[in-house]
Amino acid sequence: MAKISVGVLGATGMVGQNYIALLNDHPWFEVRYVAASPRSAGKKYKDAVAGRWQLAKTYAPPVGEIMVEDANDVSRAVAAFKRGDCSFVFSALEMGKDETRALEEAYAAAGIPVVSNASAHRWTPDVPMLIAEVNHQHADIIPTQQKARGWNRGFIVVKPNCSIQSYMAPVHALAKAGYTAERIIVSTLQAVSGAGYPGVPSLDMIDNIVPYIGGEEEKSEKEPLKIFGTIENGVFQNAALPKISAHCNRVPVTDGHTACVSLEFGAKKPSSMEEIIKIWTTYRSLPQELDLPMAPKQPIIYREENDRPQPRKDRDTDKAMAVVIGRLRPCNVFDIRFTALSHNTVRGAAGGGILSAELLKHKGYLG
Amino acid sequence: MAKISVGVLGATGMVGQNYIALLNDHPWFEVRYVAASPRSAGKKYKDAVAGRWQLAKTYAPPVGEIMVEDANDVSRAVAAFKRGDCSFVFSALEMGKDETRALEEAYAAAGIPVVSNASAHRWTPDVPMLIAEVNHQHADIIPTQQKARGWNRGFIVVKPNCSIQSYMAPVHALAKAGYTAERIIVSTLQAVSGAGYPGVPSLDMIDNIVPYIGGEEEKSEKEPLKIFGTIENGVFQNAALPKISAHCNRVPVTDGHTACVSLEFGAKKPSSMEEIIKIWTTYRSLPQELDLPMAPKQPIIYREENDRPQPRKDRDTDKAMAVVIGRLRPCNVFDIRFTALSHNTVRGAAGGGILSAELLKHKGYLG
Amino acid sequence: MAKISVGVLGATGMVGQNYIALLNDHPWFEVRYVAASPRSAGKKYKDAVAGRWQLAKTYAPPVGEIMVEDANDVSRAVAAFKRGDCSFVFSALEMGKDETRALEEAYAAAGIPVVSNASAHRWTPDVPMLIAEVNHQHADIIPTQQKARGWNRGFIVVKPNCSIQSYMAPVHALAKAGYTAERIIVSTLQAVSGAGYPGVPSLDMIDNIVPYIGGEEEKSEKEPLKIFGTIENGVFQNAALPKISAHCNRVPVTDGHTACVSLEFGAKKPSSMEEIIKIWTTYRSLPQELDLPMAPKQPIIYREENDRPQPRKDRDTDKAMAVVIGRLRPCNVFDIRFTALSHNTVRGAAGGGILSAELLKHKGYLG
Amino acid sequence: MAKISVGVLGATGMVGQNYIALLNDHPWFEVRYVAASPRSAGKKYKDAVAGRWQLAKTYAPPVGEIMVEDANDVSRAVAAFKRGDCSFVFSALEMGKDETRALEEAYAAAGIPVVSNASAHRWTPDVPMLIAEVNHQHADIIPTQQKARGWNRGFIVVKPNCSIQSYMAPVHALAKAGYTAERIIVSTLQAVSGAGYPGVPSLDMIDNIVPYIGGEEEKSEKEPLKIFGTIENGVFQNAALPKISAHCNRVPVTDGHTACVSLEFGAKKPSSMEEIIKIWTTYRSLPQELDLPMAPKQPIIYREENDRPQPRKDRDTDKAMAVVIGRLRPCNVFDIRFTALSHNTVRGAAGGGILSAELLKHKGYLG
Repeated sequence: MAKISVGVLGATGMVGQNYIALLNDHPWFEVRYVAASPRSAGKKYKDAVAGRWQLAKTYAPPVGEIMVEDANDVSRAVAAFKRGDCSFVFSALEMGKDETRALEEAYAAAGIPVVSNASAHRWTPDVPMLIAEVNHQHADIIPTQQKARGWNRGFIVVKPNCSIQSYMAPVHALAKAGYTAERIIVSTLQAVSGAGYPGVPSLDMIDNIVPYIGGEEEKSEKEPLKIFGTIENGVFQNAALPKISAHCNRVPVTDGHTACVSLEFGAKKPSSMEEIIKIWTTYRSLPQELDLPMAPKQPIIYREENDRPQPRKDRDTDKAMAVVIGRLRPCNVFDIRFTALSHNTVRGAAGGGILSAELLKHKGYLG
Repeated sequence: MAKISVGVLGATGMVGQNYIALLNDHPWFEVRYVAASPRSAGKKYKDAVAGRWQLAKTYAPPVGEIMVEDANDVSRAVAAFKRGDCSFVFSALEMGKDETRALEEAYAAAGIPVVSNASAHRWTPDVPMLIAEVNHQHADIIPTQQKARGWNRGFIVVKPNCSIQSYMAPVHALAKAGYTAERIIVSTLQAVSGAGYPGVPSLDMIDNIVPYIGGEEEKSEKEPLKIFGTIENGVFQNAALPKISAHCNRVPVTDGHTACVSLEFGAKKPSSMEEIIKIWTTYRSLPQELDLPMAPKQPIIYREENDRPQPRKDRDTDKAMAVVIGRLRPCNVFDIRFTALSHNTVRGAAGGGILSAELLKHKGYLG
Repeated sequence: MAKISVGVLGATGMVGQNYIALLNDHPWFEVRYVAASPRSAGKKYKDAVAGRWQLAKTYAPPVGEIMVEDANDVSRAVAAFKRGDCSFVFSALEMGKDETRALEEAYAAAGIPVVSNASAHRWTPDVPMLIAEVNHQHADIIPTQQKARGWNRGFIVVKPNCSIQSYMAPVHALAKAGYTAERIIVSTLQAVSGAGYPGVPSLDMIDNIVPYIGGEEEKSEKEPLKIFGTIENGVFQNAALPKISAHCNRVPVTDGHTACVSLEFGAKKPSSMEEIIKIWTTYRSLPQELDLPMAPKQPIIYREENDRPQPRKDRDTDKAMAVVIGRLRPCNVFDIRFTALSHNTVRGAAGGGILSAELLKHKGYLG
Repeated sequence: MAKISVGVLGATGMVGQNYIALLNDHPWFEVRYVAASPRSAGKKYKDAVAGRWQLAKTYAPPVGEIMVEDANDVSRAVAAFKRGDCSFVFSALEMGKDETRALEEAYAAAGIPVVSNASAHRWTPDVPMLIAEVNHQHADIIPTQQKARGWNRGFIVVKPNCSIQSYMAPVHALAKAGYTAERIIVSTLQAVSGAGYPGVPSLDMIDNIVPYIGGEEEKSEKEPLKIFGTIENGVFQNAALPKISAHCNRVPVTDGHTACVSLEFGAKKPSSMEEIIKIWTTYRSLPQELDLPMAPKQPIIYREENDRPQPRKDRDTDKAMAVVIGRLRPCNVFDIRFTALSHNTVRGAAGGGILSAELLKHKGYLG
């Protein structure tokens, strides 16, 4: 089977680099188009990232030879599409919100589907905010979106903020089993890679933590309601619950966001901690059923040790795509509490985006 | 005024070193007796801590010349008391709980008051667990304790766990203003010095956090109930509220425990965030009224910046004895949330112990 | 081809865990025997390491089921050898030097070859201290060693200290090209994993470095002389040069020792920096010619960026077995200076040991 | 005695903040003028640094009320001088080198002496590069400088790079005792505060070191030659020795540069390590003789422990102005080696500048 050609917008930034690195040897997708700011345009990708490459894993040599295009110039991507080099794009654009919103729409209008890591379209009413294991059915809005916009082949899907990724799947798995969370109080200990590069100054992260991440708490409280929401009249209708209160902290960890979650169920409550662990560890969703390449075999891993999960030891579990949970115990105030971890730049960003694209491919939207 | 002679038990350990260093130049107290394990006994203090001294601040030269005694041998302290060198002791013993309990009782029975940093006697029904600004009146149980035990001059007081120090004063200040906390969900990001030396391995604290501290959550949930409790029939009666649920995490910070607190009041709630900030910043207690040497001028400092408090920047505020709070805002689930910080080895350990001793001196118990 | 059965002594310690993890899926070797202290003996390996496993990568499930034997009881290994489960052992013993020396000899005497990570036998005159790419011919002393000791099948080989691994291959490659180093002044910035677990306390590694590692400088200065030495009359004769002066520092890095090297050649000096880089990057040795499974394709990688190598970004290069060098430039005092990096627990410990075993297998000593 | 009024140029930057904080309660100097970029000009100092203040120690309240001036507008400083508010300035300008050079000259030409932390004038032939304990006599060039430039009251002095501060005093003390260093190979482990704020990204400093600091090695090798140089014909003549080769590394430490030094003497060599330690610990210079307020009592402290100096434990020794040395031992290649530490933002920057100003005051240049 010939691979599907892929473009990456914002390919020289940190999230873009993650997309490039994770797509090395991907069985379905092949990076054949890269675009970035005008500053990088016209250079070979390897030259554009020389001295700026942040990852231990490197890019595939052929990608290094691709000429970087100006991401603002949609016509270049259309030309690439026509010659078979850009079936769809991953957007890792790092410009302002309004510009991103407009630019992603321009790509979609020009017939290039956009799987976006940017936050610009998260609250666009007909754009799905996907976590493949949680709300894959939200992708079904795409034909409606295309029709309403007059788009032919293009569309836009986005992913939610990385800070909530570690507890969305566990909360969803419990809901699927009949135990709906009504209230959640969560404190996150978030990795510095979430702020990009150069990002957080080292003077703030040596012998220190910073108890604030701009905008993160609001996103953590609001985005789950769309993810758990429904499609009504061609737009998303938010769920009313759970009510979430988030404390977001930056800690001296490179990768891996940890969440300390206290959770109160509605009237129906699990009978025991063992039942919950069983629900989590046996949970499988569409990506697992389809055995998608980027899908973790088991989306939720439970560790029995009392001091896990830990970011450095657990973040890379199953291609860094599994959520790792530990310390499930009764909460002294709500019903239960636990600690959850997910890799923010893989599961929470580029890896999650690739998994969404695999899902969309399966559903026939990238044909 | 001649200074009161002081002994330190466990003087070579990390908490003991903190006592020694903080008592340099103390206006009322003077270290004239040091005791530790048999291994250190018989050496000069300076030789006993050579190569083991952990602090940037050093000990007073005369303390370095004191011969270390065996802490297990109470008769040595009694002899020191008789010659005017040990009016009372700070206990920083690091032995087992049962041994500590028995040994501290032996000191008290021998007429040497014990102000203890150890946890052994925290749940002894007639032993007060003091935070000087919060429950100074609990010291009034001392005559009852002495009488019941048949102790003449000796007695035992303890301090609570360092993990709760940052939010006890703020919660208490609100209660004094009529706003009682009923439910608290708190996540702490605790410094490694809380585990002593060698304590937490560096392999666990580089690019990592550990979401578990043995016993810490239980203490965090239970100890406040004694602190907020009352004396009835000569013993402490726990308060019923607040219900607390704690998530305790170890983070790569040397000193300073941070707490992310979500709090629900009872029926009576403050009218605004401004009212709460005013309650906190105007709060003064007995140590402030008495202007005790170790007391912070203002026990609760509120920082307006949205990214404070931070451990490295704020832990040393006012001799490292002030609690520093920031980020007060409505909680999406409970009533309010905020971030609080206190220096765990000063406010939360040796400094808190010294402040308690100053209070006891004022009340006449160390005469 | 049936795999060769392997035992690991000290299998529950940190180096032992590295051996176990690196031998997952090894094409030639299969762990079928594990031994540790009496405390672990009698437990399944998975139970013996529960809560003590330090690595992100885990052990192969069948290894988890192996019953741990007492490493002091050589007869257990002999029995395993007889039933085909222990052709040779990797020694990661963590006992005292004298005990290790005696115990490793007992294994060899009993017919079990020992590839040791321990330092006990480094200065035994007929025991080779191998870096596979540098002095593979030193393995040729094995028949002499066996004959002198009256050993039949068993023998002992060791590896040198991890602190010198990053500059031995580069210095050797230059010597092979005719440019012998006469004087080296080197400062190392060493990772905490080199001290095992719990190892270096976090209080020493947060906002700090420690300019001392016990015994490390002496080893760094002496061991290269044996590695560059010759076999004469059945024992090793040290080389006279290079004279080395080492400053060894501990820094807050998990894995990867960095060395800042200033080097003075003898009379014959390379003509340019380019020539040196070419010598390094084209250097290949026996492990590369044989394409041994653990051998890096290119033992020395040169990075052109002016701020590399960096531990976190470069330590895992080519299975963490390549030495990564950068910043070659003229020295203002000697001839050249450069920065070199190698992964201390892989290249410098377990991975290096496995590569040595692969070499010994090729030479027929593990038949 | 009325205090001398002082201005700080670049007062809102990190070095500027250090000047402001260190001048709190200075017995001779009082900050009464602050200038920064046009962006800050017109704001009160407290507002200009709100949310940007980096230090644990804060500024004196009256300084917070001073209106920030535009540092480019020398006439504002002249006006301040005339009304008695700006006798001289500390320059912590962070603009380009050429602009800094011109601007500092403009201040001097306008009659305002400049004690500069910037590097712009380090190689101006008639500008002294002062370390008060090492080359205080270099200040004697000031009248020549003033005359040659046609300056009346103004002049310029600078300080050298922070990376060499830990070993200049020790090398100088040995030279004064007759033991001249001819060759030095040094590796530094430098703190991130040396790069200012935001400075080094945390992604580069978690589980990592960076073996490169732009320009630092060249400065480390060249600046000592001017410091050890002589005044001839009204300009500085560099010393020929020592030849220095420097490897400069960035490490995850907030404050405190560590240097691993190997040193070769000329023909005359100290008889023993004890002699050297005695030379160092008994060394006193003009700042000590004059008992200048910022001078450490003993400029070089020697620690006997084998694992010191360490940045976090030793950097604050004697107001963070003392150099702390340890690990003196014979070098296997040169004559001696040792580890030296100095606080880069105090001794190596603002504190060193203040000490120079105290010296200049004593010499009558700030009258």
